[in-house]
Formats: sequence, C-alpha cells, structure tokens
Amino acid sequence: MKVAKFGGSSVANAVQLQKVGDIIRSDADRKFVVVSAPGKRYSGDEKVTDMLIQLGDSYRDGKDYDQHIVKVMDRFKEIVDDLGLPQNILDDIEGTIQEVLRKDTSIELKLDALKAVGEDSSAKILSAYLQSVGENASYINPQEAGIIVSNDPGNAHILKESFSKIYSLREKDGIFVIPGFFGYTKEGELITFSRGGSDITGAIIAAGVKADMYENFTDVDSVFTVNPTLVDNPKEITTLTYREMRELSYAGFSVFHDEALIPAFEKGIPVCIKNTNNPQAPGTNIVAEKKESDKCVVGIASDTGFCSIYISKFLMNREVGFGRKLFQILEDEEVSFEHAPSGIDDMSIIIRESLLTPEKEKRVMERMKKELQPEKIDIHRDLAMIMVVGEGLVSTIGIAQRATTAISTANVNIEMINQGSSEVSMMFGIESEGLQRALQSLYTAFFE
Amino acid sequence: MKVAKFGGSSVANAVQLQKVGDIIRSDADRKFVVVSAPGKRYSGDEKVTDMLIQLGDSYRDGKDYDQHIVKVMDRFKEIVDDLGLPQNILDDIEGTIQEVLRKDTSIELKLDALKAVGEDSSAKILSAYLQSVGENASYINPQEAGIIVSNDPGNAHILKESFSKIYSLREKDGIFVIPGFFGYTKEGELITFSRGGSDITGAIIAAGVKADMYENFTDVDSVFTVNPTLVDNPKEITTLTYREMRELSYAGFSVFHDEALIPAFEKGIPVCIKNTNNPQAPGTNIVAEKKESDKCVVGIASDTGFCSIYISKFLMNREVGFGRKLFQILEDEEVSFEHAPSGIDDMSIIIRESLLTPEKEKRVMERMKKELQPEKIDIHRDLAMIMVVGEGLVSTIGIAQRATTAISTANVNIEMINQGSSEVSMMFGIESEGLQRALQSLYTAFFE
Repeated sequence: MKVAKFGGSSVANAVQLQKVGDIIRSDADRKFVVVSAPGKRYSGDEKVTDMLIQLGDSYRDGKDYDQHIVKVMDRFKEIVDDLGLPQNILDDIEGTIQEVLRKDTSIELKLDALKAVGEDSSAKILSAYLQSVGENASYINPQEAGIIVSNDPGNAHILKESFSKIYSLREKDGIFVIPGFFGYTKEGELITFSRGGSDITGAIIAAGVKADMYENFTDVDSVFTVNPTLVDNPKEITTLTYREMRELSYAGFSVFHDEALIPAFEKGIPVCIKNTNNPQAPGTNIVAEKKESDKCVVGIASDTGFCSIYISKFLMNREVGFGRKLFQILEDEEVSFEHAPSGIDDMSIIIRESLLTPEKEKRVMERMKKELQPEKIDIHRDLAMIMVVGEGLVSTIGIAQRATTAISTANVNIEMINQGSSEVSMMFGIESEGLQRALQSLYTAFFE
Repeated sequence: MKVAKFGGSSVANAVQLQKVGDIIRSDADRKFVVVSAPGKRYSGDEKVTDMLIQLGDSYRDGKDYDQHIVKVMDRFKEIVDDLGLPQNILDDIEGTIQEVLRKDTSIELKLDALKAVGEDSSAKILSAYLQSVGENASYINPQEAGIIVSNDPGNAHILKESFSKIYSLREKDGIFVIPGFFGYTKEGELITFSRGGSDITGAIIAAGVKADMYENFTDVDSVFTVNPTLVDNPKEITTLTYREMRELSYAGFSVFHDEALIPAFEKGIPVCIKNTNNPQAPGTNIVAEKKESDKCVVGIASDTGFCSIYISKFLMNREVGFGRKLFQILEDEEVSFEHAPSGIDDMSIIIRESLLTPEKEKRVMERMKKELQPEKIDIHRDLAMIMVVGEGLVSTIGIAQRATTAISTANVNIEMINQGSSEVSMMFGIESEGLQRALQSLYTAFFE
C-alpha cells in the first residue's frame, strides 16, 4: 500500500493530471493520493494558491474581490473542460469559495479556509477524472480522513489521535484522493499547515495508514548531489537516509521541506522522490538505514544569508555560566542559532540573517556587551554555509582532507569548520562570494 | 627596567643561585627579582614547597611535625652554607616557621603561611647572596611591596589598588628581591596564589612598576613549537603574541601558567621566557602584536583527557532555548566546558574528564535526558585535542588543508574540527591513541 503525493506542477493542467492518472492506475498499490493546488503551467504563470491569497487579502481590505474569484475559476474551468469533466465540479468549487466568504468566522480562519480551496479543488477534480476513466476513486475531505490539527492558522500541527482514525481508511475499497495542506480542529475549523503543507498531509496519511512507501511526485527525477543551479549537471542521489536528507534539506535542497516528512520518518516509512513527467526514473529513495558499504559522501548542500556574531573574552572557558548567559540573551530575543563553535576565549554564533532584524540585532549586541562584558564583539555578514553530508563521514579517514583541499583549490578561504558535532555532516563557513567556486570544486572532489 | 622571575630549579641549590646572581649582575636593568621556592636538584628530589605542605598537614593532624622542619631547614642550610652566607638567615627562616605555627589564626591561614615559607626564604637567601658579592640588594616582603590580595587562601586575586603602591618601588635605589607566590590581605593576613603563583607575582610586579620587560627564567631555552616529549627535537619559537601564547598554553605547554601572565599582558608588557642555565640563548618573546609578515602557524599544542557528550535531537536548531537549557544544567553542576560545536540536530560538549566526577556525570546525563528529551545522548571518552595556533591563521587559505592532510597521512581519524571560533587557532579532536602520530605529522607539515 502506497501513498502518492503530487505537487503543484503535477496538477497544474489537464495534461499533467492525465499523467498523474496514468501513474496512479499503473500501480494498484497507489491507494492514497494527496494533491497540491495547481501550480505554474509555465515560468511566469501564477499559482492558484497565490490567487486565493490575493482574493482573501482583497476581501479583508474591503476591496473588490470578484475579479480574483473569476481568475481562480478560470484556472479550474480550463482544467475541468480539458479533462472533459462535468460542470457541477466548478459549481461545487465556487460554492465552497462563496460559503467561506459568507461564513460567520474570524478573518484569520476565513483566509486560511480560502487558501485551502486550491488543494481541495485539485482533489475533487482528480477524483472525478479517475472516475471518468473507470476507477473506483473518491474524494475524501481531511476532516473525514481524520486529520485533526491544532488551532494554529497557517501553522497547524497534527494531533496524535489522528493516526488511528486515518488507519481505518485502509479498510475501505478504492482509491482515495485527499487534498493536501490542511486539516480540521476538534471543533471543526479548517486550519492550514505551513506553506508546502501538502507534503505534510502526504506524510501524515502515509504514517496513519502505515504505508509501505510514501511517493512524493515532483518535477525532478531525483534529489541531486549538489544544487543544480550552482553546479552544472550534477549526479543524482539514488538512496539517502533520513539523517542525510535532513542535513541536506537544511541548506539549499528545496525539493521539499524535510520537516514535512517527519510523520513518515517517525513511523519508519520509506519515502521516494519521483518525477511525474518521468515516472520510470528510479527517483531518490529516503530510508531509515543504509548498508555499511554504501556509506560515503552523498551530497553537498549550501545556503547563503548567514551572519556570525564573534565574541571574545579572556578566560571565557573558565567562566562557569558564560554559555548559559549568552544563550539566555538569544532566547529572550527569540533568536534561534544554527551553530555555536567555541574556542578557549572566543565563541561564534551563526545565525540566519533573516532572523536578526536591525532592532533585534541592536538589542542582542547591546545586551551581550553589557551582560557578558566581552573584550571584543563583532558581527560578520554575508556568509555561506556548505554542508558535506554522508553517513559514515565521521568515521572515514581523509574526508576532511579532501573537502578542505577542494575548497582551498578553489581559492576560497575557510572562515569556519564545524565537524564532529553531527555524525553525518561537516560544515564549512565561507564568504558568499566564493560559494559557487567552492561547490564546483567540492563536487569534483567527491563525485567525479 | 626589567622584572626577572626565577623558577624553582633556578634556586634549587647554591650553584643555581650563583647563576641567578650572575644573570642579575650582568644587566643593570634587572632591578626587580622574584623567586620561587627551591625546586628539585635532581630527578626524584623533593621540592621545598612539598615539604612545607607535609609539615602543615602533620601539624593539622596532630602528628609529630618536627622531622619536617628539620628536612626544610636542612635544604636551606645546604644552600646557605654552600653560598658562604651567615647562619642568622637560617635562624630567621626557622623563626618564621615557628611564628606561623604559634600564631593564633585559623588552620587554613596557617597552612597558607607555611606554604609561603619556601619563596620567602629563597628571597632572603638571594638578597643576602647579592649583598655578599657587593650588590645593593634587599629583600622586600610582599606586604611592603604592596601586593594586596583577596582573602581566598590558595587562590588569591590581586586587588587593583596594589599597582600604584608597587609603582612607587621604582623610586628606590638598588635591587629588590621579592618572594613569589603570596600577598597579604588588607587586614594583613598572608594568602597564597594558586600553585605556580610565583609567575603571578612576577607579572604583578612587572605590571606595577611598568617594566620594559618581564623575564621569566626557567630551565628551558624557549617555548617549543610542539611538545618535545611527544616530537623529537622540535624547533623553538622566537616570538609569540599573547593570544598565541594563551592558545598554546591551553593544552600541553607547561612552561608556565599562561593565566599567571595576565597582569603583564593587561599592561602590554613584553614577556621573555629564558633559561637560567643558558642565559645567552635568545629565549621566546611574548608580545602584544606581531608584524603582518610574521604571521603564520607558530606552534601546535595538544592535551589528552577530554570527553565529549554528544546530544542529538530532531529539530534542535528550531528549539529556541535548547542551548540555554543545556548550559544551565552544566552551570548548575559547575561543569565548565571547553567547546560546544553544534550542528542542526546535534551538539557536542567537550569537557575535561577530570571535571566530570562519576557522580556529576550521572547527574548531568540524567538531567539532560530528562530536561532536554534528546533522541540520543552518549559520552565519548579518551579524546585528545590538538590546537594549531598562529596569528593570521583564519585568513590564510590552505591552512586547514595542510592540517587535515597531515592528520590523515598519519592514519588518524579526525573526530572533530573546530575552526573559526578563534581567530588564532584551529582545533582538532582525535582519539588519544593517535596523538603522537598526528603531532609528528603536523609538525613535519608546518615546521620542516
């Protein structure tokens, strides 16, 4: 039994939906299908979810919002007509939108419910299409499926009790098409997950029904060993462990939100990343464990937009409580940090620049000066982080040598190395300017 | 104007004291002399300070302590007789001991005062010797010199007001011999510094009189680039910055306690490490700043006896307050840590094994399990740390490459790398078993 999740580009138009239909029909194990809202049909196209957000904003601001409804409905009409499906589906979709707008709820809940119309309609259309080609398929609303979530609009969390309800779906016959991205509170309010939340729904369903596999269909054949926008034609990764995936996703691997897969990871369900446009490609398998012999460097992730707060104080390492005081300041200011390498008298705190608004930065720096009395404190901006990822990396002699040699060969200075805290990754901090050179050189060293 | 400090081996017997005399007389700038207690004359010999500690312990425990007084006096008698000095010095020394034992104070203060007799007597003997060879020399008691300290027996800290009093010593004529290792509280109680405290006294006097140089005479020609007990015939270091010294001292460089030099460092006074037995050797200079062109790897320090607590928790880096909670536990248990490299979901805390008694370890591990709810926590023992030290290291491309290549070539796995937190060092964690191989290989890479 498999759960197959299809992303926005896979349900963007009738041609794509027909591919999705073929994929589902080609494997009787694909009993549970989770869909995103229609994405872009071409570069520069608009995603349905973005249209729905505009609709919601206009409604909230008291502006004319009818034009947005028309735009949304035009997208769905094109799909429904091209698939030759009955018009009542469109009536149903527009009815859903009007009901949300009419309903006596808070604006926050209304906006959440509007955003969810894209996925909800995708699921209705796909199930109707599957029926039209003779499949025993049906749409299931997340409430009916048992996806019970916390009342955090835009950031729902699944409640544990959901899983047993979802498990009972196994008993029913046929194919079930479930909209991604949202669930319902115990009180019956529709609440969305964070953006990219269709992946979360897929993982929840996979965990709930204890699927043999969670297939995540996107528009790439697999996860690449390195960001293909920075290195030309990188190799594909055939198998990743959860831990490797997590480290890779951390920086720059945008195939999906790794945290979205947590429900599947927790139940040990293998995940496969596949391509709707090339379903024969083996894709990338994400598994709990790897054979010892397959352990090596599996990928290189990178991301920019980091800064580093450097603090130096004589005898820091003798000062019991220094670390705690420092992290208390960050906690008070709600700044989470990525890494905190420390020396004898020095410590660096690596933070995503986006988390440090100018006001927060000012407060953090002032408090650190006052409360920690450092001899030196400054901030280093525009850093990029590179993660070399692989199970067994920590216990393989010579990996650090190959990595540092590759970066030096690219004439890039290593501002920072953090190895040994993680068992599956090695982190390098460099100035963003040298990122592409360093990545190309690392790729050559480890994969060519 | 120079302050010259002579360690225990330099005042161990008459021959050594004559060398000290020659050194002082060969340079008229050597106006302030600080001495340790007589050290070992040969391998297996006993230090006078250790005899005094035994004397104190016997007194405290109500045992016969006369034999210990005899032993101490025998050592001093040998020196005084060999130098041909008058017997009244010995009467003075024994009188000091008897007065301490007689005085109505706490046992803690008594033990501290007994421990200080070694340095005090060294200073009296050296000043008498200098007088006997025609120098205008005098003994100055630390109280008279102005060394006012906190009331922490065995761990005194200098009070700021001391320095102006000490400065006034400049005005007086002649050579002043000052015992190291102790000062006096405002109330007039004798309190010792931590062990090795003669270096502290020297640095305090150097800072107080604003010396042009603080000469620290030991029994080695200089500081070596790497521990000479682990690598054969390593090169000597001619010039070090304070920061480099500090990083080197941290692990394995036992020439002196780097923290002892803080008073001199703070006033920017150059320090020179010299050899009493070979005063012509240039020694090692420790300075505040180095020319840009001289910046490179200056030394490699190492130490064993570390352990690492590894903690892994999914989404650790999103959990605001995780770091603070972790460090709070360490603070509560009074465990200071050396480094705390962290990854996305993992953190390692490097601690000196000696700080983690079995009971503390049990409590720390239990609290971490309970309060941090990690997925995995374990402890990795028997680690060695290697520090590659040098100003400019952080901004020189290729240093990490050379270091990691050297360690790999020695067939040693790198368990941990911490680079970038300190501007002058790069840290490697390895299993202790591979330390000698790794050091030899690093030494070859950077110095041969």
